[in-house]
Formats: sequence, C-alpha cells, structure tokens
Amino acid sequence: MQAASTLKAVVFDVFGTCVDWRSGIAREVALAAASQRVAIDAEGFADAWRGRYQPSMEEVRSGRRAWTILDTLHRESLDALLPKFGLGMLDGPARDDLVRAWHRLDPWPDAVAGLERLGRRYVVGTMSNGNVALLVNMAKRAGLPWDVVLGAETSRAYKPLPAAYLNGCAMLGLEPAEVMLAAAHEDDLRAAAAVGLRTGFVARPLEYGAGRRADDGSRGAWDVKAADFLDLAAKLGA
Amino acid sequence: MQAASTLKAVVFDVFGTCVDWRSGIAREVALAAASQRVAIDAEGFADAWRGRYQPSMEEVRSGRRAWTILDTLHRESLDALLPKFGLGMLDGPARDDLVRAWHRLDPWPDAVAGLERLGRRYVVGTMSNGNVALLVNMAKRAGLPWDVVLGAETSRAYKPLPAAYLNGCAMLGLEPAEVMLAAAHEDDLRAAAAVGLRTGFVARPLEYGAGRRADDGSRGAWDVKAADFLDLAAKLGA
Repeated sequence: MQAASTLKAVVFDVFGTCVDWRSGIAREVALAAASQRVAIDAEGFADAWRGRYQPSMEEVRSGRRAWTILDTLHRESLDALLPKFGLGMLDGPARDDLVRAWHRLDPWPDAVAGLERLGRRYVVGTMSNGNVALLVNMAKRAGLPWDVVLGAETSRAYKPLPAAYLNGCAMLGLEPAEVMLAAAHEDDLRAAAAVGLRTGFVARPLEYGAGRRADDGSRGAWDVKAADFLDLAAKLGA
Repeated sequence: MQAASTLKAVVFDVFGTCVDWRSGIAREVALAAASQRVAIDAEGFADAWRGRYQPSMEEVRSGRRAWTILDTLHRESLDALLPKFGLGMLDGPARDDLVRAWHRLDPWPDAVAGLERLGRRYVVGTMSNGNVALLVNMAKRAGLPWDVVLGAETSRAYKPLPAAYLNGCAMLGLEPAEVMLAAAHEDDLRAAAAVGLRTGFVARPLEYGAGRRADDGSRGAWDVKAADFLDLAAKLGA
C-alpha cells in the first residue's frame, strides 16, 4: 500500500475476522445440549444464531428500536431459537451462560501474534458490533492486545452505518484516511471505504465451516489483501 | 479489603494518579519558551494550566456548554494563558504541540509494573476526564497496559458527575460494587463511592511538587489505601 506512513491506526472487525465464532458457539451449545441429554446439530445452531444477528441489529439501525447492546440482542435471539432445537428447558442462568459464550470465542491462530506485531507500529483497536464488555472479556481470555476497544457501543451505531466508523475515528483523534479497517467481510470494508477509511481484507476461508463460501477479497479494490494477520502486518511494514 | 473476590475491575484516574502531569507539562513548556528565548516559570505555567481544568469542565458539566473533549478545553485554556507568560507569539502548530504534551506525560515509576500485576487478576482500565485519543496515545508511549479506555468521552460526562462512573461500569457489564476506582484524589473517590463503586486511595505526594500539599487519604473511609500501584496490587491479592 502506498502512503503507509500516514496510517496511524488499524481497527478490526472481530467476529469472524479475529475470532472463530462458529466453532466456539458450537462447542458451548453442544455442552449445554449434552447436559440435557439432547442431541443437537451444534454447527447448525451456531449458524442459526448468527443468522439472527443482522436482522436483530437492523431493528436498532433503522431507529425502530432504541439503542440496545449486542449481549441483549444475542439473548433475545437465543430465546427464540432454543425451542426450535429442543432446548426450551434451559433456565435463565444457563441462557446467560450461553450468551457469554460470545465472550469466550477463540482467536484464529495468527491473530494474537499478528496484533502484537501491528501494535508495535500502529494503534490497534476493535471496530466491532460487539459491546464493550464482550470485547474486553474476550480480549482478556484470548490475549488480544488491543490498545483501545471501540465499536457500536462507543459509537452508539451499528456497522455498517457511517457513524459507527466515523465516531471511532473521531475518538482516536484521527482522520478516516489515517485509519484502516481490517475485516474478512467485504460489505464491512465497502461501508468503511465509503466514509474514507482505508481497507484491509483478511481472508478467513473457514469462518462458515469447511467447504462453505466465505468472502475472498475479489469484490472490491481493497488497499491491502492479506492471508492472515501476520501477512497484514508484513504488508503494512510492521 | 473484604470480599475482594467479587471485585472484577479496577479503573484509574489518570492525571496525577497514573502520570506526573506537572513535571511533564513544565518540561514541554520550558522547551517551547526556550525556542522563543523567553524566560518562564515552567512549573508555575503547569499549575496555571491545570488550574483552569476544573472551571473549563464545569461549563460542560453544568450544561452551559455542549459536550466538548478535554483536548479542546486544554487548547482554549492554553490560548488564554500564553500571553500572560509572554508566549503569545507561539503559532497554531506550536500550540497544538503543547496541547499534545498532555498525551506525552510520564507514568509514576510504579505505574506500569503495578498495572501489569493488577491486570493478571482484574480488568484494568482508565476512568479519566481525558479524551480517548489522549489516553490511547499516552498509553502507547508510556506502556500503560489498559484493557479498556473509559472515561468522560465514552460516558459523555465529566467526573465527578454520577454518569461518568456509572456509564463506565455499565459498559463493562459490571455492577458498581464490582468495580474499584483507584485515585489519588479524595473528591473523585467520594463521588465514585456515592454511586456504589469501591475505592482505592493511592498516595501521590509529589503530584503538586515537593513540599506542596496533596491528599493523604485521611478524608474518607476508602476500601483500600495504598502507597503506590504495587502496594495496591498486593492489597488486592494480585
């Protein structure tokens, strides 16, 4: 990328880009189901839960619903899904614990090392639709070395609304062109580019499971395309 | 402290508690004055600049002024002070640079080691009236290992307003009783205690210079009183 010298911060999408939500959610749902002696398609459950993610945020983005953090949206989606998977008997504390499974997702193998390397040259932060507690708890457990936790809750706007990106840049005291969004999702990158951020596509071909389609970086002229976070660090001179 | 097991996060006042603002500001003002061949009482300048801190925030707290970040308040106070110290000739970029001196303050000698130790057991974060960019830039330079940067800008309220503390706890997903404010200032601790946070007084006898009075922890029944951050870590079992 030209003009890397004017880049000051790299902010990251988290679910799918930094952490493997599908395996983590499937693992914890499988445990919950086993505790009830219920047979379950755990990956299917994870996909179904994630499938309710965008519609639940859209209620807030559209203004039909007041500001609501992702933990709350996750809980509501979970409550709707559990009966469909034969897990309607799970009590409140068990449901709270499953919602917290999103706080306990594992990073992709290159993520911590790549962020540490990037952090020696740039401010590294989140730019996630996850709420602050979720992101802080995840980082503490996984060792993700964020300099700053930014996202929908600090911006009071869910991506891909412009305010989600622009409020984050403003909090960093930076122009959008001094900030790169790194993400495995081209829709996210497109929205960030539209308001002036730089873009780094990071391939996460296993996000939706082996053999399932993931974005490959071909849908836009991203400033950087990287195979993983170490490759991103190398391409950004970190 | 009893019931340390229910404590989840320790959040810190920053100016004076984590970093030595007086020496840092005096050092940078002295350099700016020397560049103009102006003789200046640099410590006096630092005191005068800091003296405008509470009145400038009070305009925002009171609602007389819309939300304004500390960098902006610092710049306005600086513009008012420079002529009084014979430095009215400093141009815009030089003034911008002096405002950024608050981003470049040095930590007290125990601060980084103490935070690292506390961070192994607790979430450690800021709860500062500094804006996010100021706190992130300071932490990057000084090596302050924050898990999360919280404060006036993320809460949209300056301490000691209740919302400054309570919005921070809410973002952490914690009850106030699960969060301790650590500060060298008893007014700050009193306001935090009034809304349910635990309190850790940390002595910083040199904050205002040798021989000048600083809070000594005697004005309240703080949950913990510590000589420095390492002592605080020891007393919190970290």
